[in-house]
Amino acid sequence: MKKIVLFGAGKSAYTLVNYLAKEAKAQQWQLTIADINCKPWEGKFSSEIVDLVPFSLDNEALKHSLIQESDLVISMLPARFHPSIAEACLLHSKNLITPSYVSPEMQAMDQEAKSKGLLFLNELGLDPGIDHMSAMKLIHHLKEQGAAIEGFESFTGGLIAPESDNNPWHYKFTWNPRNVILAGQGGAVKFLHNGRYKYIPYHKLFDRTEIVHIDGYGDFEGYANRDSLKYIDLYGLQGVKTMYRGTFRRPPFCKAWHVLAQIGATDDSYVMEDSENMTYRDFINTFLKYREKDSVEIKLAYYLGIDVDGDEMRLLTWAGLFEKKKIGLKRATPAQILQHLFEQKWALESGDKDMIVMWHLFNYRLNGEDHRLESAMVVLGDDQLNTAMAKTVGLPIGIAAKHILNGNIQARGVCLPLQADIYEPILQELEAFDIRFIEKQVF
Amino acid sequence: MKKIVLFGAGKSAYTLVNYLAKEAKAQQWQLTIADINCKPWEGKFSSEIVDLVPFSLDNEALKHSLIQESDLVISMLPARFHPSIAEACLLHSKNLITPSYVSPEMQAMDQEAKSKGLLFLNELGLDPGIDHMSAMKLIHHLKEQGAAIEGFESFTGGLIAPESDNNPWHYKFTWNPRNVILAGQGGAVKFLHNGRYKYIPYHKLFDRTEIVHIDGYGDFEGYANRDSLKYIDLYGLQGVKTMYRGTFRRPPFCKAWHVLAQIGATDDSYVMEDSENMTYRDFINTFLKYREKDSVEIKLAYYLGIDVDGDEMRLLTWAGLFEKKKIGLKRATPAQILQHLFEQKWALESGDKDMIVMWHLFNYRLNGEDHRLESAMVVLGDDQLNTAMAKTVGLPIGIAAKHILNGNIQARGVCLPLQADIYEPILQELEAFDIRFIEKQVF
Repeated sequence: MKKIVLFGAGKSAYTLVNYLAKEAKAQQWQLTIADINCKPWEGKFSSEIVDLVPFSLDNEALKHSLIQESDLVISMLPARFHPSIAEACLLHSKNLITPSYVSPEMQAMDQEAKSKGLLFLNELGLDPGIDHMSAMKLIHHLKEQGAAIEGFESFTGGLIAPESDNNPWHYKFTWNPRNVILAGQGGAVKFLHNGRYKYIPYHKLFDRTEIVHIDGYGDFEGYANRDSLKYIDLYGLQGVKTMYRGTFRRPPFCKAWHVLAQIGATDDSYVMEDSENMTYRDFINTFLKYREKDSVEIKLAYYLGIDVDGDEMRLLTWAGLFEKKKIGLKRATPAQILQHLFEQKWALESGDKDMIVMWHLFNYRLNGEDHRLESAMVVLGDDQLNTAMAKTVGLPIGIAAKHILNGNIQARGVCLPLQADIYEPILQELEAFDIRFIEKQVF
Repeated sequence: MKKIVLFGAGKSAYTLVNYLAKEAKAQQWQLTIADINCKPWEGKFSSEIVDLVPFSLDNEALKHSLIQESDLVISMLPARFHPSIAEACLLHSKNLITPSYVSPEMQAMDQEAKSKGLLFLNELGLDPGIDHMSAMKLIHHLKEQGAAIEGFESFTGGLIAPESDNNPWHYKFTWNPRNVILAGQGGAVKFLHNGRYKYIPYHKLFDRTEIVHIDGYGDFEGYANRDSLKYIDLYGLQGVKTMYRGTFRRPPFCKAWHVLAQIGATDDSYVMEDSENMTYRDFINTFLKYREKDSVEIKLAYYLGIDVDGDEMRLLTWAGLFEKKKIGLKRATPAQILQHLFEQKWALESGDKDMIVMWHLFNYRLNGEDHRLESAMVVLGDDQLNTAMAKTVGLPIGIAAKHILNGNIQARGVCLPLQADIYEPILQELEAFDIRFIEKQVF
């Protein structure tokens, strides 16, 4: 009887847990759920199939015994904890799956994992995850046809479903709010556009968006991710002239967010004086020039050269950024103040559903002609548990787990899902869950 | 016979060395110059008075013996080396002077220095240095009169003398070029304006300047330094409504530099792809959108909303930033590329003289009336050795050295020149070198 141990079974693992429990029953496996809080899962599954183990990471002995007794380890813990799990997997010679980016510590285990015949499969969620797999499938397909890929663009967005979209930002928090507030920070953006290297500093990022239309879902606006250049080698696209990866929002989100980035309101590097007694209006005013007789609104519009009656001001006003309402947060950074505000404004309401949108664009030459191929995936949440996020992050991991246990995957070492024997069965089974790409050959 | 050891005798110590040598002769002291390169000083002074000791910092034994034999230690080394000198001063119970900001390591030695009756006098150059002393003198004077100081602003600029000012930036490198390129980076700017806390992110800093007129020298523009707020306590100005410290340039320097900061050209955090083969025109273009048919000039002007025939474009064009000339720097950051260019454009020519400008503004209430007092210091370089920078950095240290050796200063521990018994004799003797403040009671 094969055993899987899953570390971390919080909200984003909801779909994964249910998938694994169902497969465990069908395939006669045993699933162990190790989480600091197992309460949500009590009474949901037969205890013969699913074992609930209260677990905290300081319990080294329990970590080792759970891994030692398993055939496959899945870590849905926050990414910083993966290396400690991976080290135990090396020690006990167990395979490992994580949804997270390969850290240098993880990469350093590649040789030892290989020499022990182990697979440490990472970046197997949505983004990174489905983005890699769906891109590689088309890249391999185009190359097999003899195409020369000249441009690749790819965007992903974690958004709100159209039916739940009822605010002018067309956005609600469907995942980690702090990451949304700080998105794009930490260094200049790098990409390649028609053979030209391009760099965008953070404070200009939301001013440099691209509009993408997806049939049936309307317009999205994409801003660039940190480093698109590293994907040239990763995807085997040496010689490509355009390489651009980004994140989707709904217009005019980025125009309004650009205002906040420009004035410095998303800064997380310093604590503001007397933040507790400041109002949101004061907060905006701290970034503007002192002019006794002018309103905060006119000073802001003039400072950034925007229309005082335009989209930007409409969205900021809706958010309450000009209200004389106390913030009430002690020793807060600007970013913490924004997060506090938007956690109220962008909160999911009962019944709200989320939406994941992924879109790839390939420009290629084939038989002397230029072609453009678009590929789009839109996934809607079923409810507040089986969200689009939980489905798209969890199902690839669940499906991979099945194929690893069944011995269908040959890769060894620290891997990404870039090879056909990994991505093919996953993408295929995802379609059964309505997670599929629609291709559109534009020309 | 009293002995001074001076660590570091490079360009910025030129005036100091000559001052100390002259005083040593007059007061029958012995001066030891410890520098990695003593060549420039060979044969300049009587060897009975001035001893030249080739010294590098890895020679611990020599460091200790030089300090042990001295009565006073002066460190003109780069600031990061002061703590190692200071520790040896503690060990051998010697007084110390440095021109640099007090680091946490230096501050940590305060108690031990006090308990041993030692004075470690720091921030005793120009800025920090003369700024502290001249401000404190007026603050003490105003308080003695019973004035309530409501606003304090202070700017310093290391610039080029009017007679040597022959480029449209009205700027040349008269000190460390790298620091000029990176000026303002590293965190948001904080100050207080009419009772309001204000914060400016780096990318808006050069757009938020203030014009100051100084009689006889015309207009200067000031941009804010990092943290003006900490000077409220330092200067004893609790309750002040405006606290603003900044740096001077000549208009329209900041407008043009703002363009470079905005597009990301001053970023030092990443290496540009293929920087070696890029032209300066390509360099600017990497920060702009790809648009096949538009010129770099029009794209830049449109991107930032500036006049294509305006000051900004005129200054950038003069600098050669639109030229198809190869940069030729391998693996360079944007900031390194800018530095490389401006080191050619802003180089001092033979005979060029520098200029130091410092300006304070006090707004205060006295006897129920509002008053405004300005105080300005302008120092011109004599030549390329006795520069305004070398004079204003070195002379305060030299004068302080004399008064410490003569026992005129009572302060002990890690100190700044904020007390009258330190600043009075220094400011007074500086006048003999034409380093003086002109006060202007505006109302």
